[in-house]
This record gives sequence, structure tokens and C-alpha cells, in this order.
Amino acid sequence: MKNKAIEMRSCEGKGKMIQVFLPSISKFAIIVCLSLVFPSPIVSLQSAINVWPKPRLILWPKPVATFLSPSFTINSPHHQYLTPAINRYLRLIQTEHHHPLVSPSVNISNSSALEILTVNIIDLTAPLQHGVNESYSLSISEVGVTAYLTATTVWGAMMGLETFSQLVWGDPSSVPVGLYVWDAPLFAHRGILLDTSRNYYGVEDILRTIEAMSANKLNVFHWHIADSQSFPLMVPSEPELAAKGSYGPDMIYFPSDVARIVQFGLEHGVRVLPEIDSPGHTGSWAEAYPEIVACANMFWWPAGSQWPDRLASEPGTGHLNPLNPKTYKVIKNVIHDVATLFPETFYHGGADEIVPGCWKADPTIQSFLSNGGTLSQVLETFINSTLPYIISLNRTAVYWEDVLLDDKVKVDPSFLPREHTILQTWIHGTNSTKKITEAGYRAIVSSSDFYYLDCGHGGFLGNDSQYDQQTAGGNSGNGGSWCGPFKTWQTIYNYDITNGLSEDEAKLVLGGEVALWSEQADPTVLDSRIWPRTSAMAEALWSGNRDESGKKRYAEATDRLNEWRYRMVSRGIKAEPIQPLWCVRNPGMCNIVNSF
Amino acid sequence: MKNKAIEMRSCEGKGKMIQVFLPSISKFAIIVCLSLVFPSPIVSLQSAINVWPKPRLILWPKPVATFLSPSFTINSPHHQYLTPAINRYLRLIQTEHHHPLVSPSVNISNSSALEILTVNIIDLTAPLQHGVNESYSLSISEVGVTAYLTATTVWGAMMGLETFSQLVWGDPSSVPVGLYVWDAPLFAHRGILLDTSRNYYGVEDILRTIEAMSANKLNVFHWHIADSQSFPLMVPSEPELAAKGSYGPDMIYFPSDVARIVQFGLEHGVRVLPEIDSPGHTGSWAEAYPEIVACANMFWWPAGSQWPDRLASEPGTGHLNPLNPKTYKVIKNVIHDVATLFPETFYHGGADEIVPGCWKADPTIQSFLSNGGTLSQVLETFINSTLPYIISLNRTAVYWEDVLLDDKVKVDPSFLPREHTILQTWIHGTNSTKKITEAGYRAIVSSSDFYYLDCGHGGFLGNDSQYDQQTAGGNSGNGGSWCGPFKTWQTIYNYDITNGLSEDEAKLVLGGEVALWSEQADPTVLDSRIWPRTSAMAEALWSGNRDESGKKRYAEATDRLNEWRYRMVSRGIKAEPIQPLWCVRNPGMCNIVNSF
Repeated sequence: MKNKAIEMRSCEGKGKMIQVFLPSISKFAIIVCLSLVFPSPIVSLQSAINVWPKPRLILWPKPVATFLSPSFTINSPHHQYLTPAINRYLRLIQTEHHHPLVSPSVNISNSSALEILTVNIIDLTAPLQHGVNESYSLSISEVGVTAYLTATTVWGAMMGLETFSQLVWGDPSSVPVGLYVWDAPLFAHRGILLDTSRNYYGVEDILRTIEAMSANKLNVFHWHIADSQSFPLMVPSEPELAAKGSYGPDMIYFPSDVARIVQFGLEHGVRVLPEIDSPGHTGSWAEAYPEIVACANMFWWPAGSQWPDRLASEPGTGHLNPLNPKTYKVIKNVIHDVATLFPETFYHGGADEIVPGCWKADPTIQSFLSNGGTLSQVLETFINSTLPYIISLNRTAVYWEDVLLDDKVKVDPSFLPREHTILQTWIHGTNSTKKITEAGYRAIVSSSDFYYLDCGHGGFLGNDSQYDQQTAGGNSGNGGSWCGPFKTWQTIYNYDITNGLSEDEAKLVLGGEVALWSEQADPTVLDSRIWPRTSAMAEALWSGNRDESGKKRYAEATDRLNEWRYRMVSRGIKAEPIQPLWCVRNPGMCNIVNSF
Repeated sequence: MKNKAIEMRSCEGKGKMIQVFLPSISKFAIIVCLSLVFPSPIVSLQSAINVWPKPRLILWPKPVATFLSPSFTINSPHHQYLTPAINRYLRLIQTEHHHPLVSPSVNISNSSALEILTVNIIDLTAPLQHGVNESYSLSISEVGVTAYLTATTVWGAMMGLETFSQLVWGDPSSVPVGLYVWDAPLFAHRGILLDTSRNYYGVEDILRTIEAMSANKLNVFHWHIADSQSFPLMVPSEPELAAKGSYGPDMIYFPSDVARIVQFGLEHGVRVLPEIDSPGHTGSWAEAYPEIVACANMFWWPAGSQWPDRLASEPGTGHLNPLNPKTYKVIKNVIHDVATLFPETFYHGGADEIVPGCWKADPTIQSFLSNGGTLSQVLETFINSTLPYIISLNRTAVYWEDVLLDDKVKVDPSFLPREHTILQTWIHGTNSTKKITEAGYRAIVSSSDFYYLDCGHGGFLGNDSQYDQQTAGGNSGNGGSWCGPFKTWQTIYNYDITNGLSEDEAKLVLGGEVALWSEQADPTVLDSRIWPRTSAMAEALWSGNRDESGKKRYAEATDRLNEWRYRMVSRGIKAEPIQPLWCVRNPGMCNIVNSF
């Protein structure tokens, strides 16, 4: 879906019209004739008073602010999850005293201090789930005293609270007046995948990440919990999986941990979407149940064999064996317990990277193949024995694109009912999104060419002679990183996830997720790998990557992202710097060409 | 210099001989006939009891350990800098209780607990300077009770203390017995460059880095203090430079900070080598003295101009004007004060990246050129007006290679006396090292192809349309990073800094330095950008990157580096992970080929 400016129409004497960007799938359009709201002229929000992601509409005709009253408070209806958010934001707003890197050129008015933010919610009952209304409007009148935040749902209100918090700066705290914000996301699904199997992350790391997500208006924490390297989730019905398959007793997520994370997500407007990857990526299951895992604990790429004959695409072998009935006893217990632990209505089943060599190494499967069966039939057996159960638990299944698009092992679309199945892209760039949506499936976009945060740090394999070179560029393309080069914030920002799709196809794109796979990541680098690059995606999916004229806005976004990065750091997120501080202080001077 | 195994000779009945690697420049050779020291056989140190960098010689015939006595202490002569190190290591050894990732298969003997480490120093007066003897030997007899650390200098003793600390593990603490270590570096200069101008680092960040350096047996903290972006050093004779050129009053290194850093370095065996880059990279000086800086505060790459006509190689313009007499008043004050603040006998003068367009923008220089002068003469004027002064302060000058090798602006070798000048490489890979040493100069190797830690993270410039692509690989080679790809630890480990040199040329190579330039780095990523990749260089320069047979040892180094990385993390250094934890637990299984 391309963001399209709505057609210019005349305001016929009602004042200057501004363009409001709306996704083409949007059911409504807004024309704002400014004189209806404010006299004139429009002054865009100063970069120094910065909201990230940039709201869809900000009107602030005069750069005037007032002080926040020392007794400032927030009035809102009571709600199980909103009330903790209110309390958190109130504390933040009262104590943050953010100092922008570039001092705002704003006049402090003589009007009264702002005393109250009043929050109105239209529907207090809407649960946090895909597609919930996240829109809000925020208005602070010129005379101050009271500001109003109006939202359809508590989840939209949380978004508005974040925006309000970012509008406050300085000591004593100041806040713009004569300001109106209307805001809503372009895409409903805006997430981060974190792999907690290859390396383990503590609960506090996950909570900190969710908190940073909410500050960036992201709403899906896709938790890639288990993989071949470790199985860190204590599943009550199958406790041996974690007892034997985790990295150790201090590296297990217990049900109480999951409950804490889910609750924290709800208090931050962030869904926690669990992934239990299967039937591939399950080597760790063999620690508890060797009998249900093919090719477990083998060297991943047998000496002398070709790449197509590998047993896994990276070290850590093992695929669940779909022809062993016991497999289903175990995985159904897992699915059941995960559906119990996670209220989220999406369940991610994985189904990526079925490696023929692994299944072929199993005698039962070998026998099936010898009798004319195919590997795709083996996978179909697995899907057909698990997907109906997932659906029966009122879950929508998410799978990686491979299940439909792999060139060797895939299932017939008839096994994947469109109303219950969503496919997530990762390989082949936008081509996959096209194929998935052409086939009528909903898509979540995580193209490795743009959204893989781990890429570009070279290979992690040991004994790799490509790195024994005495001249530059001796190693293979992109420094040995299959998905290199490193994805810069600009690469991420500029990616249009509906590029090349028809309007109907674009409607099937739910949104996107960046992914942090953990071969070369763990808590030491969690914040800096994710932030602020993920902020770039957050803005692109929330309000787009184009300005009012339809031009990509990466140039002007640079200073704003710099400011936002420093604010995240001051809030305890160790986001990496994108430029020398000098650049922020000298706007435009660090551009590659001398123009915006 | 290539590490060469000394020629195999017979031990003639004295037991099995081991090869000891020595640099070809070494004045001595060691033949160890094992039966003279220990019965037999040699058992290489278990990876789980791991010393990084690997010592040159470890003999530990039987994998036996004893407990460390709860009253364990260290006896040593008193010394201004050694005594604090002793106290620090005693506390570390008593409290660390390191748990290796893979449990050591070591027998705990029935011998007495180890009570004392006795430190003997031959020469207590040797100052910490280039080429000081850093060798040590450590022996822990089979019966325990007392261990002996012998070193020529206190600086060697500090290296031995680090080794001893890494030999201790577990709770209660255990330590190998029947162990002998002899150790000394292959290269005398083993450093890290940190750029504190483009982004600022707090004193604590620098101290933490120096502490981690000493744990890796690195001995030179090359402090690239000032550059065009900021001038953070408070120079007593020229206080305006920092007052106006720093990023702010809270981002200045005062003389008391420098004294603290220098003292900390001395207590850790780490020299603090200051660099005041000039005459290029001096835009920040113009905040205080605009009259001595050419082309300051201009857009770095004028619109429509070609690359050769740029004013700087990256944003932040400004070169000192060598034709203005006031330039020398200011810079001599700076040189004088820096030589006072830093006891280090090397003074780094920079002299890299003279950009013709910048000097040409100055009317005085333009006039000089119009009268037949050359830019190289302008640089010669500068060098000839500052280098003799540096030498007069008993300093050896270090310059970047450009001053001799730049293809446009360089000085005649007659201006650079070989006995007082060292050249540091960064561009053109090993070719530069060859040219420098062929010309008879000593060299420090910092090839950007191998040792630049910041590379591979894409460009930092704003408004860069190369990142507005909807297909993979759309941007230019290596993801827009001029020095990409990212330098993996294996790339760094395998680099032979004397590759292609004759034996005589190799003798002129003092050592190497990794560099962390700070366009995209600041305290949030300091540890993870530097560690553990710099540990890879640390071992290569200390004991080499080859095993006893002369084969590159990167395969077996993988698990050892993993272990060391986790130990650094437990010591408070947020080194990035190089593999999933699974790989360390399953040795060899994460190799690209199934063999060591």
C-alpha cells in the first residue's frame, strides 16, 4: 500500500487546506480547513519539540507553550490496564524534564499553567487485539489549564499519552499550547520479533523492550520463544521440554514470568504474540523427547556434502517427526498451554526452513519416501494435524512464508484456510509479499533485506577460512553475512512494505515486524541492535515515510530521529547513536547533499 | 613479521621438545625440553580453564587443581603503581568465583590449598614506555601452598597477575597446580584508538575501557582527543578551545580528569597516548580562534562539486592555517600542555586527510599557491614549525601515514627524522606498512580493512538517497560503509600485520591498534563495539594467531574466545556475543566445516 495524499480540494474561503495522509485502504478521509480550527498560518512542529513517530496531523499555528503546573494531573476513567499506564505517564511527565539537543524556539505564554489532562474513552471494553482502534486526538487550548485526550479505546489513549509525554520538555516543564493532534496508524500490525532461543534474555530485558516499543507506538512483541538451540519456556503439561532443553534452570521462562510479561504488555498497549516454531527448528525438543525429533544433535553440514544435502541451515539440527504419533501428543500439549498462557489471538506456528536432509535422515520418513511419499506430504501431515487444533482454540495461525512458497517442501493451499492463516515474509524481499497476497492470504512483512536487525555482522560460524585473508574484500559478499549488509535506519525507514502490490493486495498487508535473531545478540546488545533502527520502522508504519508533498522524508527525519534517540537514552534505552552530536547541533550539515 | 616456529632441534634424551613461538626480531630463543621441567606428557590447557590472550608457553602436564585458601594473599614489593594492581587483583581473585561455560575436567588434588602468590620483580624502576619488558613467568608447584610470579618489571608482573586471575575459577575457588607459564608479547605496541571528539565519552567509560584493555594485555590507549566536531580537552594555556569548542561544560576533560586517566593507566600497565590531530580535523578550534582555521563551518561537499573538490572528507570542515603565525602560538601552547599532562613519550600529531579544497578556500593560502607554492609546501611549513618543538619536549612524534604517503599533499621525508617519527597506517591495507618500513620508518598498523571497529554499519550521512531502495543490494558496496564490511573477530584475528614485509621491514613494525571512530558510536555501544573483537587482536599481537604447527588457530580460538567473552561480561564489560550459547556447550558443532 502506498501512502497517498488525498485529493486536493478547495476549502472555499474556509482557510488554507492541509493534506492529511491516509492509507488507501482507509475507510475515511479527512479534509481539514484550518480556519475551522485555528486562524493561520500552519507552523510545523519544531524538531526540537519532537514526537516520534510523527503524528498524522499536528496543528500548532503559533510556537507558544506554557508551563506544566507543579500539581499537574491526569483525569481518566478507571481501567485495569489504562490506570497503570496513566500512573506511569503521570510520573514520567512530572519528572522527565527532557532537554532537547537543540533548544526549542518557543515562546512561553503568559497563560495559566496546564493543570489537567482529561482523558475520554468512547469504548472501555475493546480488548487489545489485531485491528483494535488506536486512534486518538489531543488538544491543548491556547489558554491552557486543561488539555483533552480523546480516544475510541484505552489502547488509543495509551498512544495519546505517549504523544503528550513527548510534548513536555524542560525544567520547569513546558508544554505547547494552541495545539491539536489527530493520530492513527497506517498499519495495524507493528512489531518486533525477538529470538530467545539462540541466546537467552531475562524477563527484565523483555519488559524494557516492551516499554520502549510502547514509546515508539509499536504494538506486537513477537516472541520467538523456542528453537533448536534451547527451549526456555516451562510448559506446564510438558515440563521436561524446558527442564532438559533450556540452557539451564536460571534460563527458563516460568508461567509466572509469562503472566508478568503479558500483563506488562497489556499495560503498554503491546500484544505478546508467541511463536513455537515447528516442525523445523526443534532440535532442543530432543533433549526431552529424542524419539519425536529427526536428525537431532548431528553436525549440521556433513563433511563433503553439498549445501542442498545439509541437515539444517545453521548449527542446531532437528525437525519434529510428523510420522510419529507421539509428536502430536507433545505438540498439542504445548499448543494448548501456550494458548492458555497467552491471551493473544494469533498463534505463530513457525513452519519455516524445512531442510530435506534432516527428514531424510529419519528411517520412518525415509521409508515413507521410498513408498512414493513426498516431503511436502510429510509437512502437510504435520500442518493438518496441528492447524485445526490451533483454530479450535480460537487462534489465528501465523506461519512463515516457506509453508506456502518454499521451492522444495511446502503444503497445498487447501491445508491453509485463508480466514485462519496469516503468512509472514522474510526471504525474497517484496516478491514474497506479492505472492502471498496474490494467493489471498494476509501478510506480515519481515523482509530480511530490510527488517533483519542482526544482519551485517559477518558470519558466526567457527573455523571459517573466508576470514583468513590478508587483503580487503577477500571474504564473500557482504562480509560473510547471508543477509548483509547491515540495515541502516534509512534503509528501514524508506522501505515501503506494500511496494509493487495492487490496491487489493495491499489491503491484505497487516503490517511489519523487524526481527532480532540472536546468533550474535543477547542482553549486552539488545537495546543497541533494536533502537533506534526500529523507531524508523515504527514511524514508517504509523504515519508513513513521506511528507505532505508525497516525497520521502528521510532527510528531515534525521534530526528528529537523533532527538528521539537521545530521549530514549535518557529514558534508559541504550539506543545506538546514528551521527556525531555535532550533526544534530548543525542541522543539515551532515547531509550527503546540501538540501532537504 | 611472521611468527616463526624456531627450528626443531633434538632434545636428545631430555624428553619431548615443544616449539615456542618467537618473533623473528626476538633476540633470544627458548628450547624447552620438557623433562627438565615436568615429567610428561604435555596436556594443553583445557579451554574451560582459559587464559586470554593465550600465553606463549603453558605447561600443565596433569589436569590437577587445588583450592585457593580462604586466606590467600599476594606478597610483593611495594611500588607506586604495582601495589594498587596487587590490591585489585587480590580482591578479584578472592571474589570472582568464575563459572566456566563448560565445566573443566580437572581433578582437585589432595594437596594443600594455595596460600600465597609471591611476586618477584627484577627491576622496580623501569618506567612504562614503549618496549618495556613485559615478560613474566608463573609457576604453581604440584604441592601447592605457594605460587611464584617472576617478572623483569612491574609491568610484566601486572601481565602475570592477570594470567593468574584467569586461572582461578569456581566456588570455592580452584587453581591449577603443577603449572608453569612463560609469557611475553610478540609485539610491543598493542592498542586501542578511541575518538572522543565526534561523540563524547565520560571518564568512567574510558577507565572501564582501560581496565578491559589490561585484562586483554593491551598496553596503549591511543586517545584521539579532538577533531573537527568538538574539542573536549581543557588545555590550561588555551582554555577557550574547550570552553567554546567542546560539546558543553559537562563534556570537557579537565586536567584532573586526565591525571586520573593517566594514573589509572599506570596502575593497569596501559600507556595513555594523546593525539591532537592537526592541521586537518580542526574545525572545532575555530569556535575559539576562527582566524587560524581555514574553511571552518562550511558545508563539507559543496553542491554540484566533485569529490576531489570537497572541503572535508566528512561533515565538519576546518584545517589549521599554516601560513598564519598565530596558528603556532596556539598549537605550541597545546603541544606544551599536552606534553605536561601526559607523561607518555609518544605524541600523536595526526596530519591525516589534508583536503586540498579546504586550504584552497583560504585567501592567504590561495595567494601562496598563486605565487607558485604548493599545498605540500604548506604542509611542510606546518610540520617544520611543530615537529621540532614536539621533539624538543622529548617526545617521539606519531603521524598518520598520509603525511608521507598521500598522493596529493605530503611532506618530503627530510622533514620527518626517522629516529623521532613513527607512522601509523590506516588506508591501503598492508601496502602502506610496506611503504613506510621500506622508507625506514617505524610503523603502527591500524589498517581500516581489518582494524576499524566502526566499519560496516552503513553511512551516517543524512539525506542519502542510496538507502531509498525497494530491492536488496540497491545501495553501494558494503552497504554504504566506505570501509565495510564489518570486521568480524575472525577477520581481526587472522590479520598478520607484517604480511609481505622483509625481515628487516618487519622489525620496524611496533605493533597494531584497533580504532573506534565515533560517528556511530558513543558510550551506549562502547563495550560491544570494542569487545570481544579487540580481544582477537590482543591475542594475535601477544602470542600470535598460529598453533604449534604453524597453522592458523582461529578454529580452536572460537571456544576460548567465547569463554573469555562471558568472563568479560561477568566482570562488567558488555562485550557482544559471537555465537549462540549452544555453540560453546557443543564444541566444534558450530564450525562451518566439521574439523579443527
